[in-house]
Amino acid sequence: MTSLPEIDGERLLARLDAFAEIGATPGGGVNRQALTRGDRQARALMTALAKARDFSVFQDDAANLFIRMEGRDSDLPPLLIGSHLDSQPTGGRFDGALGTLTAFEVLESLADVAFEPTRPIEVVVWTNEEGCRFAPGCMGARAFVEGKIPLEWAGTRATDDGSRFNEDRLATIEALAPEIDHRRLGFPVAAYLELHIEQGPSLESAEIPVGIVTGVQGTRWLEVLFEGQTAHAGTTSLQFRRDPLKALTTGLAALYETVMPEKADARFTVGRIAVTPGSVNAIPATASCTIDLRHPDTFVLDMLEEDIGTQLAAAAETERVSFSIRKTVDMAPVTFSEDVVATLQTAAKTAGFNTRSMISGAFHDALFLAGHAPTAMIFVPCRDGLSHNEGEYVKPEDSVAGAHMFLASVLELLR
Amino acid sequence: MTSLPEIDGERLLARLDAFAEIGATPGGGVNRQALTRGDRQARALMTALAKARDFSVFQDDAANLFIRMEGRDSDLPPLLIGSHLDSQPTGGRFDGALGTLTAFEVLESLADVAFEPTRPIEVVVWTNEEGCRFAPGCMGARAFVEGKIPLEWAGTRATDDGSRFNEDRLATIEALAPEIDHRRLGFPVAAYLELHIEQGPSLESAEIPVGIVTGVQGTRWLEVLFEGQTAHAGTTSLQFRRDPLKALTTGLAALYETVMPEKADARFTVGRIAVTPGSVNAIPATASCTIDLRHPDTFVLDMLEEDIGTQLAAAAETERVSFSIRKTVDMAPVTFSEDVVATLQTAAKTAGFNTRSMISGAFHDALFLAGHAPTAMIFVPCRDGLSHNEGEYVKPEDSVAGAHMFLASVLELLR
Repeated sequence: MTSLPEIDGERLLARLDAFAEIGATPGGGVNRQALTRGDRQARALMTALAKARDFSVFQDDAANLFIRMEGRDSDLPPLLIGSHLDSQPTGGRFDGALGTLTAFEVLESLADVAFEPTRPIEVVVWTNEEGCRFAPGCMGARAFVEGKIPLEWAGTRATDDGSRFNEDRLATIEALAPEIDHRRLGFPVAAYLELHIEQGPSLESAEIPVGIVTGVQGTRWLEVLFEGQTAHAGTTSLQFRRDPLKALTTGLAALYETVMPEKADARFTVGRIAVTPGSVNAIPATASCTIDLRHPDTFVLDMLEEDIGTQLAAAAETERVSFSIRKTVDMAPVTFSEDVVATLQTAAKTAGFNTRSMISGAFHDALFLAGHAPTAMIFVPCRDGLSHNEGEYVKPEDSVAGAHMFLASVLELLR
Repeated sequence: MTSLPEIDGERLLARLDAFAEIGATPGGGVNRQALTRGDRQARALMTALAKARDFSVFQDDAANLFIRMEGRDSDLPPLLIGSHLDSQPTGGRFDGALGTLTAFEVLESLADVAFEPTRPIEVVVWTNEEGCRFAPGCMGARAFVEGKIPLEWAGTRATDDGSRFNEDRLATIEALAPEIDHRRLGFPVAAYLELHIEQGPSLESAEIPVGIVTGVQGTRWLEVLFEGQTAHAGTTSLQFRRDPLKALTTGLAALYETVMPEKADARFTVGRIAVTPGSVNAIPATASCTIDLRHPDTFVLDMLEEDIGTQLAAAAETERVSFSIRKTVDMAPVTFSEDVVATLQTAAKTAGFNTRSMISGAFHDALFLAGHAPTAMIFVPCRDGLSHNEGEYVKPEDSVAGAHMFLASVLELLR
């Protein structure tokens, strides 16, 4: 019998440092946006590390990268573990990379002791999780689950240099094609497990090292538009004003006081606001904003969306301006596999980890994989909940603890 | 004894039509921005009309145009009457043009009956009142009153084609220079009188044809900035948010409910609002806006400005975000000459006009002339108070009534 596999914390942290050098920014973060030169360098390094350990490497038509360890029965669908290596333009060094390198560390730790899993294990690097260079996000995971690349993505242009998604995708695939084999999209998967930084402050503030993620909250994006009458700031008295920004701010002020204070699990965010014509001395003609609304429960989302419409419409009526609201995104809440979650809880208990069950507030590739295979996630704390920011930071001991938990979970899933 | 001068309403309306053709826009307005080809065409037409009546024509270094009728004593400072001919990019046909052409109609009506005034009368066309192509507005009137062109204007670039103020100013002067004489900036003036459309709805709604303007309200421009902490919309619960837009909208909502409702003469306008980074799914890092605050009384302006600072600071404190406010414009209220205002009231009474005394909400060239000579203004109603808009409209009978009132006022001022 071989000895038990163990995480090599030093190796994991060294790998994190090595990947953080690719696309490193002066502020200590990374700019390694999807399908750029930096992203390709990261894929090349990942491939080189895999080949050095004699793992086989594949990529599919979405440029998703797979690193495979064979199992006792190679015909069984693999256990899939991983995350992404692309980043925001001024992103942190842990978002995506920590999950990918933790999965690879697990593979190496198994190889270190010549562990033979019951089924194949594959580390996956999903393409374009962030969605900031090419929308939408999670392109690789979406295409994998759909089994094809949606036609409408072909002409999508990059926000930075204007190049086409299709060209950058093919160039990325071709850069590695001589060294690695092709794989079809959407092959069967036994289960999917992803580790990620929380990107929120709850684990850190509760001093809990591991979150077991039981699902992803639902998200709706709304576009709100008020239309009034532009007029001269100096000459138009109150009775003649039809000010759409007054309606918008009054309506938003009311919503800020009700939505989140009354529903602890709700998230209500106005990330964009604008007026036209945007002149210091003109009452605006239009005022608009976006609303990002989230909650784990579809029923509550429906109720909140109705509340928002009602309150904003009332503000519009008071100011005698017209009002419209349009839903641009409606992602239903996802509940992860109860079996996988239970397995993680067992693994945590056995390994002695203090955990918290939690809902993910952010999208992840796992949200899409949940439609393809039994799926769950593990979160580790990050400082001040800060992410999508060069100051993103995870304590070394938390990264290593997460890897221990991930290894224990993989072993439990393989039983 | 000559017969009494009389306004020729048909002639005035025909002149308005002729000038509305210069820079006419498809929407029925004009685009005759300062020192453009259209502006030069308007000056050329004005000059041709003046020469056809044997008036002498001058221009100064600011390209202000003067059309002079001699008086009994040519050494006395002239009575100055006029307005401007430049427009907003999608401006109306009455803003500026009505006052200029009314002043010229008065000059023609006097010439029709060979009326000899006690002192010279000059019609002035001020350069760049609007300030939209080259900031600031009222450049011609400012330079006239200062007696020189401020050095800092020389390099100012046009917002449309990027050409320099100084080059366009000289080209405009040179285009007319062969035909007309030069005049120094800031010569002595007996009194200044300007007719303008109200650019607000109060005369129209009260069905009063003439406003006697006793002053211009004070204006302050404030720039407000809240700085919080950007964070993920989905993962950050209420207790961890430091949302600057929540602070801004809450603060503004409170101000909308107090400033204007409590002070009938106050004007409170937020014309610009912005957040960074401006991402649908990110709590903003910063939220900013402009405030345009007006009132005829400096004491009340001081009080309101303090109130605004206090209320916004309180909102910032509640949301744990930082707050700053900066004053970028502070134009004190101006009170026009009591003598000129009394003379206008006498003229109105004699001529049988129903008038209203009022404060101008907008800037005008007269605001600057008030620092140089006894000054007042006459307002005529415009439809729905609409101005800076192609739909700007003045009823023909209101234009003609305004000209009658203007002639009566000029005759009274000459007594």
